[in-house]
Amino acid sequence: MSTRQDPRDAPAPTTLRPAREGLPEHGEPPKYFQVKTKVGAVLDALDEGAVVPTERELATRFGVSRMTVRQAIKELRLEGRVQRRGRSTVVAGPKFVQPLILASYTEGVRRQGRRPGRELVTLERVPAEPIHAELLEIPAGSTLVHLERLLLADDERIGLESTYLPLARFPALATSFDPADSLYGFLRAAGVVFAEADERIETVLASPREVQLIGTAPALPMLLINRVSRDPDGRPFECVRSLFRGDRFSFTARLTPGLEP
Amino acid sequence: MSTRQDPRDAPAPTTLRPAREGLPEHGEPPKYFQVKTKVGAVLDALDEGAVVPTERELATRFGVSRMTVRQAIKELRLEGRVQRRGRSTVVAGPKFVQPLILASYTEGVRRQGRRPGRELVTLERVPAEPIHAELLEIPAGSTLVHLERLLLADDERIGLESTYLPLARFPALATSFDPADSLYGFLRAAGVVFAEADERIETVLASPREVQLIGTAPALPMLLINRVSRDPDGRPFECVRSLFRGDRFSFTARLTPGLEP
Repeated sequence: MSTRQDPRDAPAPTTLRPAREGLPEHGEPPKYFQVKTKVGAVLDALDEGAVVPTERELATRFGVSRMTVRQAIKELRLEGRVQRRGRSTVVAGPKFVQPLILASYTEGVRRQGRRPGRELVTLERVPAEPIHAELLEIPAGSTLVHLERLLLADDERIGLESTYLPLARFPALATSFDPADSLYGFLRAAGVVFAEADERIETVLASPREVQLIGTAPALPMLLINRVSRDPDGRPFECVRSLFRGDRFSFTARLTPGLEP
Repeated sequence: MSTRQDPRDAPAPTTLRPAREGLPEHGEPPKYFQVKTKVGAVLDALDEGAVVPTERELATRFGVSRMTVRQAIKELRLEGRVQRRGRSTVVAGPKFVQPLILASYTEGVRRQGRRPGRELVTLERVPAEPIHAELLEIPAGSTLVHLERLLLADDERIGLESTYLPLARFPALATSFDPADSLYGFLRAAGVVFAEADERIETVLASPREVQLIGTAPALPMLLINRVSRDPDGRPFECVRSLFRGDRFSFTARLTPGLEP
Protein backbone atom coordinates (compact mmCIF):
# COMPACT_ATOMS: atom_id res chain seq x y z
CA MET A 1 0.00 0.00 0.00
CA SER A 2 1.35 3.34 -0.99
CA THR A 3 1.31 5.89 1.79
CA ARG A 4 0.83 8.73 -0.69
CA GLN A 5 -2.66 8.71 -2.15
CA ASP A 6 -2.10 11.88 -4.12
CA PRO A 7 0.84 11.82 -6.51
CA ARG A 8 1.13 15.58 -6.15
CA ASP A 9 2.38 14.96 -2.61
CA ALA A 10 5.53 13.30 -3.93
CA PRO A 11 8.61 15.49 -3.90
CA ALA A 12 9.52 16.66 -7.40
CA PRO A 13 12.49 14.62 -8.61
CA THR A 14 15.66 16.63 -8.30
CA THR A 15 18.59 16.94 -10.65
CA LEU A 16 21.61 15.06 -9.33
CA ARG A 17 25.09 16.38 -10.05
CA PRO A 18 27.20 14.36 -12.49
CA ALA A 19 29.74 11.94 -11.01
CA ARG A 20 33.23 13.42 -10.49
CA GLU A 21 31.63 16.83 -11.09
CA GLY A 22 32.06 16.20 -14.80
CA LEU A 23 35.87 16.41 -14.76
CA PRO A 24 37.63 13.62 -16.67
CA GLU A 25 39.86 11.26 -14.69
CA HIS A 26 42.36 11.10 -17.54
CA GLY A 27 43.81 13.93 -19.56
CA GLU A 28 43.75 17.64 -18.90
CA PRO A 29 40.28 19.02 -18.09
CA PRO A 30 39.40 22.05 -20.23
CA LYS A 31 40.15 25.28 -18.36
CA TYR A 32 36.75 26.83 -19.13
CA PHE A 33 35.02 23.87 -17.49
CA GLN A 34 37.09 24.20 -14.32
CA VAL A 35 36.05 27.86 -14.26
CA LYS A 36 32.42 26.85 -14.92
CA THR A 37 32.54 24.60 -11.84
CA LYS A 38 34.02 27.43 -9.75
CA VAL A 39 31.46 29.96 -10.99
CA GLY A 40 28.75 27.37 -10.23
CA ALA A 41 29.92 27.36 -6.61
CA VAL A 42 29.74 31.18 -6.57
CA LEU A 43 26.15 30.95 -7.85
CA ASP A 44 25.23 28.39 -5.17
CA ALA A 45 26.00 31.04 -2.55
CA LEU A 46 23.81 33.70 -4.21
CA ASP A 47 20.04 34.16 -4.13
CA GLU A 48 17.79 33.97 -7.18
CA GLY A 49 17.90 37.25 -9.07
CA ALA A 50 21.25 38.33 -7.55
CA VAL A 51 23.67 39.99 -9.96
CA VAL A 52 26.57 37.71 -10.93
CA PRO A 53 30.05 39.27 -10.66
CA THR A 54 31.28 40.66 -13.99
CA GLU A 55 33.47 38.69 -16.41
CA ARG A 56 36.34 40.98 -15.48
CA GLU A 57 35.93 40.31 -11.74
CA LEU A 58 35.65 36.56 -12.24
CA ALA A 59 38.66 36.51 -14.60
CA THR A 60 40.76 38.30 -11.97
CA ARG A 61 39.49 36.11 -9.14
CA PHE A 62 40.27 32.84 -10.94
CA GLY A 63 43.39 34.03 -12.79
CA VAL A 64 42.06 33.26 -16.28
CA SER A 65 41.22 35.26 -19.40
CA ARG A 66 37.86 36.94 -19.91
CA MET A 67 37.30 34.68 -22.94
CA THR A 68 37.52 31.64 -20.66
CA VAL A 69 35.02 33.15 -18.22
CA ARG A 70 32.75 34.05 -21.13
CA GLN A 71 32.60 30.44 -22.34
CA ALA A 72 31.82 29.22 -18.81
CA ILE A 73 29.04 31.81 -18.40
CA LYS A 74 27.65 30.94 -21.84
CA GLU A 75 27.20 27.29 -20.85
CA LEU A 76 25.66 28.27 -17.51
CA ARG A 77 23.21 30.46 -19.44
CA LEU A 78 22.30 27.71 -21.93
CA GLU A 79 21.66 25.41 -18.96
CA GLY A 80 19.49 27.96 -17.17
CA ARG A 81 21.75 28.63 -14.15
CA VAL A 82 22.03 32.33 -15.04
CA GLN A 83 20.11 34.65 -17.34
CA ARG A 84 20.52 38.10 -18.84
CA ARG A 85 18.68 40.99 -17.26
CA GLY A 86 19.35 44.18 -19.17
CA ARG A 87 23.13 44.52 -19.24
CA SER A 88 23.65 42.28 -16.19
CA THR A 89 23.76 38.56 -15.70
CA VAL A 90 21.67 37.34 -12.77
CA VAL A 91 21.12 34.04 -10.97
CA ALA A 92 18.17 32.29 -12.64
CA GLY A 93 15.29 30.72 -10.73
CA PRO A 94 14.74 26.98 -10.83
CA LYS A 95 13.38 25.44 -14.02
CA PHE A 96 9.63 25.06 -14.33
CA VAL A 97 8.57 21.49 -13.53
CA GLN A 98 5.67 20.64 -15.83
CA PRO A 99 3.89 17.30 -15.44
CA LEU A 100 3.41 15.26 -18.61
CA ILE A 101 -0.39 15.02 -18.45
CA LEU A 102 -3.27 14.84 -20.85
CA ALA A 103 -4.46 18.21 -19.59
CA SER A 104 -3.49 21.45 -21.27
CA TYR A 105 -0.40 23.59 -20.78
CA THR A 106 -2.61 26.06 -18.94
CA GLU A 107 -3.71 23.50 -16.37
CA GLY A 108 -0.14 22.20 -15.97
CA VAL A 109 1.30 25.63 -15.24
CA ARG A 110 -1.53 26.48 -12.81
CA ARG A 111 -0.72 23.37 -10.79
CA GLN A 112 2.74 24.80 -10.21
CA GLY A 113 1.20 27.94 -8.80
CA ARG A 114 2.28 29.98 -11.83
CA ARG A 115 0.12 32.20 -13.99
CA PRO A 116 -0.19 30.71 -17.48
CA GLY A 117 -0.81 32.74 -20.60
CA ARG A 118 -0.89 32.42 -24.36
CA GLU A 119 -0.34 34.98 -27.08
CA LEU A 120 -1.59 34.45 -30.62
CA VAL A 121 1.06 34.43 -33.34
CA THR A 122 -0.71 32.78 -36.29
CA LEU A 123 -4.23 31.59 -37.08
CA GLU A 124 -4.46 30.29 -40.63
CA ARG A 125 -5.75 27.54 -42.89
CA VAL A 126 -3.10 25.33 -44.44
CA PRO A 127 -3.29 22.22 -46.64
CA ALA A 128 -2.40 19.01 -44.76
CA GLU A 129 1.13 17.90 -45.60
CA PRO A 130 1.70 14.13 -45.91
CA ILE A 131 2.97 13.96 -42.31
CA HIS A 132 -0.15 15.71 -40.95
CA ALA A 133 -2.36 13.48 -43.10
CA GLU A 134 -0.70 10.35 -41.71
CA LEU A 135 -0.92 11.50 -38.09
CA LEU A 136 -4.52 12.72 -38.35
CA GLU A 137 -5.69 9.93 -40.68
CA ILE A 138 -7.14 12.40 -43.19
CA PRO A 139 -6.44 12.94 -46.91
CA ALA A 140 -3.27 14.88 -47.75
CA GLY A 141 -4.15 18.34 -48.98
CA SER A 142 -7.34 18.62 -46.94
CA THR A 143 -7.66 21.81 -44.95
CA LEU A 144 -6.15 22.19 -41.49
CA VAL A 145 -6.53 25.02 -39.04
CA HIS A 146 -3.08 25.98 -37.76
CA LEU A 147 -3.08 27.82 -34.46
CA GLU A 148 0.32 29.07 -33.32
CA ARG A 149 0.68 30.60 -29.87
CA LEU A 150 3.43 31.78 -27.59
CA LEU A 151 3.34 30.09 -24.20
CA LEU A 152 3.77 32.37 -21.20
CA ALA A 153 4.34 31.70 -17.52
CA ASP A 154 4.19 34.68 -15.19
CA ASP A 155 4.53 36.87 -18.33
CA GLU A 156 7.79 35.16 -19.27
CA ARG A 157 7.88 33.73 -22.80
CA ILE A 158 8.83 30.12 -22.36
CA GLY A 159 7.63 28.32 -25.46
CA LEU A 160 5.83 28.23 -28.78
CA GLU A 161 3.02 25.87 -29.69
CA SER A 162 1.63 24.93 -33.12
CA THR A 163 -1.68 23.04 -33.13
CA TYR A 164 -3.10 21.50 -36.31
CA LEU A 165 -6.78 20.48 -36.46
CA PRO A 166 -8.85 19.18 -39.38
CA LEU A 167 -11.28 21.91 -40.42
CA ALA A 168 -13.80 19.36 -41.74
CA ARG A 169 -14.22 18.01 -38.22
CA PHE A 170 -14.31 21.40 -36.50
CA PRO A 171 -15.90 23.84 -38.96
CA ALA A 172 -16.85 26.19 -36.12
CA LEU A 173 -13.13 26.82 -35.53
CA ALA A 174 -13.18 29.08 -38.58
CA THR A 175 -16.23 31.04 -37.49
CA SER A 176 -16.82 31.08 -33.75
CA PHE A 177 -13.49 30.36 -32.02
CA ASP A 178 -11.89 33.30 -30.26
CA PRO A 179 -8.10 32.65 -30.16
CA ALA A 180 -7.94 34.37 -26.78
CA ASP A 181 -10.10 31.54 -25.36
CA SER A 182 -9.00 28.06 -24.35
CA LEU A 183 -8.76 25.77 -27.39
CA TYR A 184 -9.31 22.68 -25.25
CA GLY A 185 -12.35 24.35 -23.70
CA PHE A 186 -13.66 25.01 -27.22
CA LEU A 187 -13.02 21.39 -28.29
CA ARG A 188 -14.73 20.00 -25.19
CA ALA A 189 -17.71 22.26 -25.83
CA ALA A 190 -17.73 20.84 -29.37
CA GLY A 191 -18.17 17.39 -27.83
CA VAL A 192 -14.59 16.11 -28.04
CA VAL A 193 -13.55 13.72 -25.29
CA PHE A 194 -9.80 13.51 -24.69
CA ALA A 195 -9.14 9.78 -24.34
CA GLU A 196 -5.38 9.54 -24.81
CA ALA A 197 -2.36 11.24 -26.32
CA ASP A 198 0.99 9.99 -27.55
CA GLU A 199 3.89 12.31 -26.94
CA ARG A 200 7.45 12.29 -28.18
CA ILE A 201 10.06 14.33 -26.32
CA GLU A 202 13.43 15.32 -27.74
CA THR A 203 15.90 18.16 -27.76
CA VAL A 204 16.40 20.49 -30.74
CA LEU A 205 18.05 23.87 -31.30
CA ALA A 206 15.89 26.98 -31.50
CA SER A 207 15.54 28.29 -35.07
CA PRO A 208 16.06 32.01 -35.82
CA ARG A 209 12.30 32.52 -36.06
CA GLU A 210 11.79 30.85 -32.68
CA VAL A 211 14.65 32.88 -31.20
CA GLN A 212 12.93 36.04 -32.42
CA LEU A 213 9.47 35.03 -31.15
CA ILE A 214 10.48 33.58 -27.79
CA GLY A 215 13.46 35.85 -27.21
CA THR A 216 15.99 33.13 -26.40
CA ALA A 217 19.70 32.98 -27.11
CA PRO A 218 20.47 31.76 -30.66
CA ALA A 219 20.55 27.97 -31.03
CA LEU A 220 19.45 27.48 -27.40
CA PRO A 221 18.72 23.77 -26.73
CA MET A 222 14.95 23.42 -26.52
CA LEU A 223 12.65 20.63 -25.40
CA LEU A 224 10.36 19.68 -28.26
CA ILE A 225 7.15 17.74 -27.62
CA ASN A 226 5.09 16.35 -30.49
CA ARG A 227 1.64 15.19 -29.49
CA VAL A 228 -1.21 13.36 -31.20
CA SER A 229 -4.49 13.35 -29.22
CA ARG A 230 -7.25 10.84 -29.78
CA ASP A 231 -10.92 10.55 -28.86
CA PRO A 232 -12.50 7.43 -27.26
CA ASP A 233 -12.95 5.90 -30.75
CA GLY A 234 -9.20 6.07 -31.26
CA ARG A 235 -9.59 8.80 -33.90
CA PRO A 236 -6.81 11.40 -33.84
CA PHE A 237 -8.19 14.94 -33.76
CA GLU A 238 -5.13 17.16 -33.29
CA CYS A 239 -1.39 17.12 -33.71
CA VAL A 240 0.68 19.59 -31.76
CA ARG A 241 4.29 20.74 -31.92
CA SER A 242 5.27 22.38 -28.62
CA LEU A 243 8.66 23.90 -28.06
CA PHE A 244 9.87 24.81 -24.56
CA ARG A 245 12.98 26.72 -23.49
CA GLY A 246 15.48 24.09 -22.39
CA ASP A 247 16.98 26.53 -19.88
CA ARG A 248 13.62 27.16 -18.18
CA PHE A 249 11.64 23.94 -18.45
CA SER A 250 11.67 20.36 -17.25
CA PHE A 251 9.00 17.68 -17.42
CA THR A 252 7.97 15.05 -14.91
CA ALA A 253 6.23 11.74 -15.34
CA ARG A 254 5.00 9.18 -12.86
CA LEU A 255 5.51 5.64 -14.10
CA THR A 256 3.55 2.68 -12.77
CA PRO A 257 3.26 -0.93 -13.93
CA GLY A 258 -0.18 -0.13 -15.33
CA LEU A 259 1.48 2.07 -17.92
CA GLU A 260 3.69 -0.65 -19.31
CA PRO A 261 2.88 -1.25 -22.93
CA MET B 1 -13.90 2.14 -27.36
CA SER B 2 -10.35 2.28 -28.57
CA THR B 3 -9.67 0.17 -31.61
CA ARG B 4 -6.07 -0.39 -30.60
CA GLN B 5 -5.80 -2.73 -27.66
CA ASP B 6 -2.02 -2.76 -27.68
CA PRO B 7 -0.42 0.67 -27.33
CA ARG B 8 2.60 -0.66 -29.20
CA ASP B 9 0.43 -0.66 -32.33
CA ALA B 10 0.17 3.11 -32.27
CA PRO B 11 2.46 4.88 -34.73
CA ALA B 12 5.38 6.54 -32.98
CA PRO B 13 4.73 10.28 -32.83
CA THR B 14 6.72 12.05 -35.50
CA THR B 15 8.62 15.29 -35.33
CA LEU B 16 6.80 18.07 -37.19
CA ARG B 17 8.81 20.78 -38.93
CA PRO B 18 8.65 24.24 -37.39
CA ALA B 19 6.23 26.73 -38.89
CA ARG B 20 7.70 28.92 -41.68
CA GLU B 21 10.66 26.53 -41.71
CA GLY B 22 12.14 28.52 -38.84
CA LEU B 23 12.82 31.64 -40.92
CA PRO B 24 11.71 34.89 -39.29
CA GLU B 25 9.00 36.92 -41.06
CA HIS B 26 10.70 40.18 -40.09
CA GLY B 27 14.35 41.09 -40.39
CA GLU B 28 17.12 39.41 -42.31
CA PRO B 29 17.38 35.64 -41.66
CA PRO B 30 20.92 34.56 -40.73
CA LYS B 31 22.78 33.26 -43.78
CA TYR B 32 23.99 30.09 -42.01
CA PHE B 33 20.40 29.12 -41.25
CA GLN B 34 19.32 29.55 -44.87
CA VAL B 35 22.23 27.25 -45.78
CA LYS B 36 21.19 24.82 -43.02
CA THR B 37 17.72 24.61 -44.56
CA LYS B 38 19.24 23.99 -48.02
CA VAL B 39 21.64 21.34 -46.71
CA GLY B 40 18.69 19.73 -44.90
CA ALA B 41 16.95 19.36 -48.28
CA VAL B 42 20.13 17.75 -49.68
CA LEU B 43 20.09 15.29 -46.74
CA ASP B 44 16.41 14.46 -47.34
CA ALA B 45 17.40 13.10 -50.76
CA LEU B 46 20.19 10.89 -49.37
CA ASP B 47 20.00 7.51 -47.65
CA GLU B 48 21.09 6.83 -44.07
CA GLY B 49 24.87 6.42 -43.96
CA ALA B 50 25.46 8.25 -47.25
CA VAL B 51 28.46 10.58 -47.28
CA VAL B 52 27.47 14.26 -47.16
CA PRO B 53 29.14 16.52 -49.77
CA THR B 54 32.21 18.30 -48.38
CA GLU B 55 32.12 21.80 -46.92
CA ARG B 56 33.98 23.01 -49.99
CA GLU B 57 31.43 21.48 -52.38
CA LEU B 58 28.48 22.85 -50.43
CA ALA B 59 30.09 26.31 -50.18
CA THR B 60 30.54 26.39 -53.95
CA ARG B 61 27.06 25.09 -54.62
CA PHE B 62 25.33 27.65 -52.41
CA GLY B 63 27.74 30.53 -53.06
CA VAL B 64 28.69 31.06 -49.41
CA SER B 65 31.88 30.79 -47.35
CA ARG B 66 33.08 27.49 -45.86
CA MET B 67 32.65 29.03 -42.37
CA THR B 68 28.95 29.51 -43.08
CA VAL B 69 28.60 25.91 -44.23
CA ARG B 70 30.54 24.75 -41.17
CA GLN B 71 28.10 26.45 -38.79
CA ALA B 72 25.13 24.93 -40.63
CA ILE B 73 26.69 21.43 -40.49
CA LYS B 74 27.54 21.89 -36.80
CA GLU B 75 23.88 22.52 -35.93
CA LEU B 76 22.78 19.59 -38.08
CA ARG B 77 25.26 17.43 -36.16
CA LEU B 78 24.09 18.65 -32.72
CA GLU B 79 20.53 17.84 -33.79
CA GLY B 80 21.42 14.36 -35.02
CA ARG B 81 20.76 14.87 -38.75
CA VAL B 82 24.39 14.04 -39.63
CA GLN B 83 27.26 12.42 -37.76
CA ARG B 84 31.00 12.05 -38.15
CA ARG B 85 32.36 8.79 -39.49
CA GLY B 86 36.14 8.86 -39.60
CA ARG B 87 37.01 11.97 -41.63
CA SER B 88 33.63 12.08 -43.37
CA THR B 89 30.23 13.39 -42.40
CA VAL B 90 27.39 10.97 -43.09
CA VAL B 91 23.60 11.07 -42.93
CA ALA B 92 22.56 9.88 -39.46
CA GLY B 93 19.84 7.32 -38.83
CA PRO B 94 16.65 8.32 -37.05
CA LYS B 95 16.79 8.97 -33.31
CA PHE B 96 16.08 6.07 -30.99
CA VAL B 97 12.51 6.22 -29.69
CA GLN B 98 12.57 4.97 -26.10
CA PRO B 99 9.28 4.59 -24.20
CA LEU B 100 9.14 6.17 -20.75
CA ILE B 101 8.30 3.00 -18.82
CA LEU B 102 8.97 1.56 -15.40
CA ALA B 103 11.00 -1.23 -17.03
CA SER B 104 14.74 -0.96 -17.47
CA TYR B 105 16.74 0.63 -20.27
CA THR B 106 17.54 -2.87 -21.50
CA GLU B 107 13.89 -3.80 -21.90
CA GLY B 108 13.11 -0.47 -23.57
CA VAL B 109 15.85 -0.84 -26.17
CA ARG B 110 14.90 -4.47 -26.90
CA ARG B 111 11.35 -3.38 -27.69
CA GLN B 112 12.77 -1.22 -30.48
CA GLY B 113 14.47 -4.26 -31.96
CA ARG B 114 17.90 -2.96 -30.95
CA ARG B 115 20.57 -4.80 -29.02
CA PRO B 116 21.06 -3.15 -25.61
CA GLY B 117 24.30 -3.27 -23.68
CA ARG B 118 25.96 -1.76 -20.63
CA GLU B 119 29.61 -1.23 -19.80
CA LEU B 120 30.80 -0.73 -16.23
CA VAL B 121 32.58 2.56 -15.53
CA THR B 122 32.46 2.83 -11.73
CA LEU B 123 31.37 0.61 -8.85
CA GLU B 124 32.07 2.27 -5.52
CA ARG B 125 30.76 3.10 -2.07
CA VAL B 126 30.05 6.75 -1.40
CA PRO B 127 28.54 8.61 1.56
CA ALA B 128 25.00 9.86 0.87
CA GLU B 129 25.00 13.58 0.11
CA PRO B 130 22.06 15.58 1.49
CA ILE B 131 20.24 15.35 -1.86
CA HIS B 132 20.56 11.54 -1.94
CA ALA B 133 19.46 11.34 1.68
CA GLU B 134 16.36 13.40 0.96
CA LEU B 135 15.42 11.39 -2.14
CA LEU B 136 16.07 7.99 -0.54
CA GLU B 137 14.73 8.93 2.93
CA ILE B 138 17.94 7.77 4.66
CA PRO B 139 20.40 9.58 6.94
CA ALA B 140 22.92 11.83 5.17
CA GLY B 141 26.35 10.26 5.27
CA SER B 142 25.08 6.67 5.26
CA THR B 143 26.69 4.42 2.70
CA LEU B 144 25.44 4.24 -0.88
CA VAL B 145 26.51 1.91 -3.64
CA HIS B 146 27.16 3.97 -6.77
CA LEU B 147 27.00 2.01 -10.00
CA GLU B 148 27.95 3.95 -13.11
CA ARG B 149 27.52 2.36 -16.52
CA LEU B 150 27.73 3.36 -20.16
CA LEU B 151 24.52 2.63 -22.07
CA LEU B 152 24.97 0.97 -25.45
CA ALA B 153 22.58 0.29 -28.31
CA ASP B 154 23.90 -1.86 -31.15
CA ASP B 155 27.40 -1.19 -29.76
CA GLU B 156 26.90 2.57 -30.08
CA ARG B 157 27.54 4.55 -26.88
CA ILE B 158 24.39 6.54 -26.35
CA GLY B 159 24.31 7.39 -22.66
CA LEU B 160 25.68 7.19 -19.14
CA GLU B 161 23.75 6.05 -16.08
CA SER B 162 24.55 6.55 -12.39
CA THR B 163 22.48 4.47 -9.93
CA TYR B 164 22.62 5.08 -6.17
CA LEU B 165 21.31 2.42 -3.77
CA PRO B 166 21.40 2.29 0.04
CA LEU B 167 23.90 -0.40 1.07
CA ALA B 168 22.06 -1.04 4.36
CA ARG B 169 19.04 -2.24 2.39
CA PHE B 170 21.01 -4.25 -0.17
CA PRO B 171 24.11 -5.59 1.61
CA ALA B 172 24.50 -8.36 -0.98
CA LEU B 173 25.26 -5.67 -3.59
CA ALA B 174 28.73 -5.39 -2.09
CA THR B 175 29.40 -9.11 -2.09
CA SER B 176 27.39 -11.07 -4.65
CA PHE B 177 26.37 -8.66 -7.42
CA ASP B 178 28.17 -9.12 -10.73
CA PRO B 179 28.11 -5.72 -12.51
CA ALA B 180 27.83 -7.55 -15.85
CA ASP B 181 24.42 -8.82 -14.74
CA SER B 182 21.11 -6.95 -14.76
CA LEU B 183 20.77 -4.73 -11.69
CA TYR B 184 16.98 -4.82 -11.89
CA GLY B 185 17.16 -8.63 -12.12
CA PHE B 186 19.33 -8.62 -8.99
CA LEU B 187 16.94 -6.31 -7.14
CA ARG B 188 13.91 -8.40 -8.11
CA ALA B 189 15.70 -11.53 -6.91
CA ALA B 190 16.34 -9.63 -3.65
CA GLY B 191 12.56 -9.29 -3.28
CA VAL B 192 12.13 -5.72 -4.50
CA VAL B 193 8.83 -4.98 -6.26
CA PHE B 194 8.89 -1.97 -8.58
CA ALA B 195 5.67 -0.16 -7.77
CA GLU B 196 6.26 3.29 -9.25
CA ALA B 197 8.90 5.77 -10.31
CA ASP B 198 8.97 9.54 -10.63
CA GLU B 199 11.04 10.87 -13.48
CA ARG B 200 12.18 14.34 -14.38
CA ILE B 201 13.32 15.07 -17.93
CA GLU B 202 15.37 18.07 -18.97
CA THR B 203 18.14 19.09 -21.30
CA VAL B 204 21.73 19.77 -20.16
CA LEU B 205 25.10 20.09 -21.88
CA ALA B 206 27.52 17.17 -21.80
CA SER B 207 30.41 17.74 -19.38
CA PRO B 208 34.00 17.06 -20.51
CA ARG B 209 34.01 13.77 -18.56
CA GLU B 210 30.79 12.70 -20.25
CA VAL B 211 32.15 13.79 -23.64
CA GLN B 212 35.19 11.59 -23.00
CA LEU B 213 33.18 8.57 -21.81
CA ILE B 214 30.36 8.70 -24.35
CA GLY B 215 32.41 10.11 -27.22
CA THR B 216 30.07 12.98 -28.09
CA ALA B 217 30.84 16.44 -29.42
CA PRO B 218 31.76 18.89 -26.64
CA ALA B 219 28.77 20.54 -24.97
CA LEU B 220 26.31 18.42 -26.97
CA PRO B 221 22.75 18.95 -25.71
CA MET B 222 21.80 15.83 -23.77
CA LEU B 223 18.52 14.52 -22.38
CA LEU B 224 18.85 14.04 -18.63
CA ILE B 225 16.43 11.83 -16.72
CA ASN B 226 16.45 11.71 -12.94
CA ARG B 227 14.46 8.85 -11.47
CA VAL B 228 13.39 7.81 -7.98
CA SER B 229 11.88 4.30 -7.80
CA ARG B 230 9.63 3.10 -4.97
CA ASP B 231 8.39 -0.21 -3.68
CA PRO B 232 4.72 -0.96 -2.88
CA ASP B 233 5.18 0.55 0.62
CA GLY B 234 6.12 3.85 -1.01
CA ARG B 235 9.72 3.48 0.18
CA PRO B 236 12.28 4.83 -2.30
CA PHE B 237 15.04 2.29 -3.01
CA GLU B 238 17.10 3.85 -5.79
CA CYS B 239 17.83 7.17 -7.38
CA VAL B 240 19.20 7.24 -10.89
CA ARG B 241 20.76 9.93 -13.08
CA SER B 242 20.58 8.86 -16.75
CA LEU B 243 22.08 10.93 -19.51
CA PHE B 244 21.21 10.27 -23.17
CA ARG B 245 22.72 11.77 -26.32
CA GLY B 246 20.29 14.46 -27.46
CA ASP B 247 21.27 13.83 -31.10
CA ARG B 248 20.43 10.11 -30.88
CA PHE B 249 17.57 9.75 -28.44
CA SER B 250 13.93 10.69 -28.01
CA PHE B 251 11.37 9.51 -25.46
CA THR B 252 7.71 8.68 -25.86
CA ALA B 253 4.90 8.64 -23.37
CA ARG B 254 1.28 7.61 -23.65
CA LEU B 255 -0.99 9.86 -21.61
CA THR B 256 -4.44 8.82 -20.48
CA PRO B 257 -6.93 10.39 -18.08
CA GLY B 258 -6.01 7.71 -15.56
CA LEU B 259 -2.58 9.30 -15.25
CA GLU B 260 -3.87 12.69 -14.27
CA PRO B 261 -2.61 13.58 -10.83
